[in-house]
Amino acid sequence: MSGTTGVSHCTHSCLDTITGVVTEVGSNVSGFKVGDRVGVGCIAASCLDCDYCRDSQENYCDKVQFTYSGIFWDGSITYGGYSEMLVADKRYVVHIPDSLPMDAAAPLLCAGITVFSPMKQHNMLQAGKRLGVVGLGGLGHVAVKFGKAFGLHVTVISTSPHKEKEAKQRLGADNFLVSTDLKQMQAGGRSLDYIIDTVAAKHSLGPILELLKVSGTMVLVGAPDKPVDLPSFPLIFGKRVVAGSLIGGMTETQEMMNLCGEHNITCDIEVVKPDYINEALDRLGRNDVKYRFVIDIAAGKSML
Amino acid sequence: MSGTTGVSHCTHSCLDTITGVVTEVGSNVSGFKVGDRVGVGCIAASCLDCDYCRDSQENYCDKVQFTYSGIFWDGSITYGGYSEMLVADKRYVVHIPDSLPMDAAAPLLCAGITVFSPMKQHNMLQAGKRLGVVGLGGLGHVAVKFGKAFGLHVTVISTSPHKEKEAKQRLGADNFLVSTDLKQMQAGGRSLDYIIDTVAAKHSLGPILELLKVSGTMVLVGAPDKPVDLPSFPLIFGKRVVAGSLIGGMTETQEMMNLCGEHNITCDIEVVKPDYINEALDRLGRNDVKYRFVIDIAAGKSML
Repeated sequence: MSGTTGVSHCTHSCLDTITGVVTEVGSNVSGFKVGDRVGVGCIAASCLDCDYCRDSQENYCDKVQFTYSGIFWDGSITYGGYSEMLVADKRYVVHIPDSLPMDAAAPLLCAGITVFSPMKQHNMLQAGKRLGVVGLGGLGHVAVKFGKAFGLHVTVISTSPHKEKEAKQRLGADNFLVSTDLKQMQAGGRSLDYIIDTVAAKHSLGPILELLKVSGTMVLVGAPDKPVDLPSFPLIFGKRVVAGSLIGGMTETQEMMNLCGEHNITCDIEVVKPDYINEALDRLGRNDVKYRFVIDIAAGKSML
Repeated sequence: MSGTTGVSHCTHSCLDTITGVVTEVGSNVSGFKVGDRVGVGCIAASCLDCDYCRDSQENYCDKVQFTYSGIFWDGSITYGGYSEMLVADKRYVVHIPDSLPMDAAAPLLCAGITVFSPMKQHNMLQAGKRLGVVGLGGLGHVAVKFGKAFGLHVTVISTSPHKEKEAKQRLGADNFLVSTDLKQMQAGGRSLDYIIDTVAAKHSLGPILELLKVSGTMVLVGAPDKPVDLPSFPLIFGKRVVAGSLIGGMTETQEMMNLCGEHNITCDIEVVKPDYINEALDRLGRNDVKYRFVIDIAAGKSML
């Protein structure tokens, strides 16, 4: 396909987001050349013709196809980054700034854009404002980094008291609340401007909503598979807002990546070789990773 | 109290909102004079000193006192409109336009402002946009009237198929969806810009959220006493928003009342005499009213 960038030597893969070096470009491709450091995120294809595609919100196109288990232009099934070579359409390829390491940049294409897009849309990147981050995992730790990079006061809200040191001392969070500690949560009432909730397990939004000031916004990005409990009173009595957000469009993904380059924001990762994938998946199931596994596909070449 | 308007001859009362004629004004009161047609809504007092009071969002002041079962400036308990005379602070009194009947205007101070405030805040009053109204009761029928007055395409969503005729023929709604009819609901997917959900019973927001376009907003005003189910997928995959809203501030209450005067918007009511109150409350419990009871307090004078 003439509009397609050949991205080969996938050096690193974070489940379905990939960084690598361009080895071949299609004849109609501009903006990319052989040797460029590039990334492919969660999106493999979209309709290109709807309002959302035209506005570079390809992520909300109702025909979007993902990089893992989607259907590419040629009808083939997408298998994410579990390969040495990948063919991608240039629309869904971004440049990786030279200042970022390829391995720690790969998960930014999922975790990074997932928190950046709503933070930008809901004006959460204003210095001096008070941001809450619920859950300190793959998404949460990047949200803390964005918050601190843009000058916000950041409060981490977690069920795990032992994460306080990590949140404050290593990631620079200003405050830490244990969500099961009623006293702490009540004392924090009406104190935050925004909250980004990264928790993927079923939970009640009530106690978290109470932390927001009047008119405050909470964005859900964690996607629990069961409905969460939304009590109407904290929503209504505080004129609060609960919003959803799904990864991001391609223009804002490049913008996010450039900002990460400027502010030196990366994901904290554990790099593994391809022969460790099954064990990594087991450990993922036990939440035993800080904070993302990245597969060094190139390291597996000798094994193939 | 010198800043207090004496509103007496409460002619009509809709539970805790009241219309009447001014019979006396305090010495420091401006803007009101004896004989004025006025209304008092849900708010009796607030702190006057917080960010929200200063911004005329008295409804979100955390010391707000309501007109029923609140505590007035002088320490007395408020009893709503169940009296012939009422003393109110001028801040919480609005003028009733001459074009509006006093009885059908009274519930606008609760049902009207409850739907108007979020409709204004979330830009739901734009002609040509597509509004959904969930629940066709006291709040819902006024939301339909606002929608049609401002030139929106209005869809009523209800569990009761028999309300279709009322919604379309009498209130002028453009479309009607039975929320339990999966086919109808699916066909309506991604079709609405905004939704105002007036249902006070526990329900799932999922099927309703699916009706919203990407980035669409749904406002909850019905205040179910148990948490509603919020599935994350329709929220996240559609970048949708669920917001709460509680009555309105005093400046916007006057604005709403003026607009109702211009557009001839009133609540549909059943006027009852004071000796019918207990029966009216019984019927309210069975949802047997279209759409609000208003007590003609003046009619009870001969009984006292």
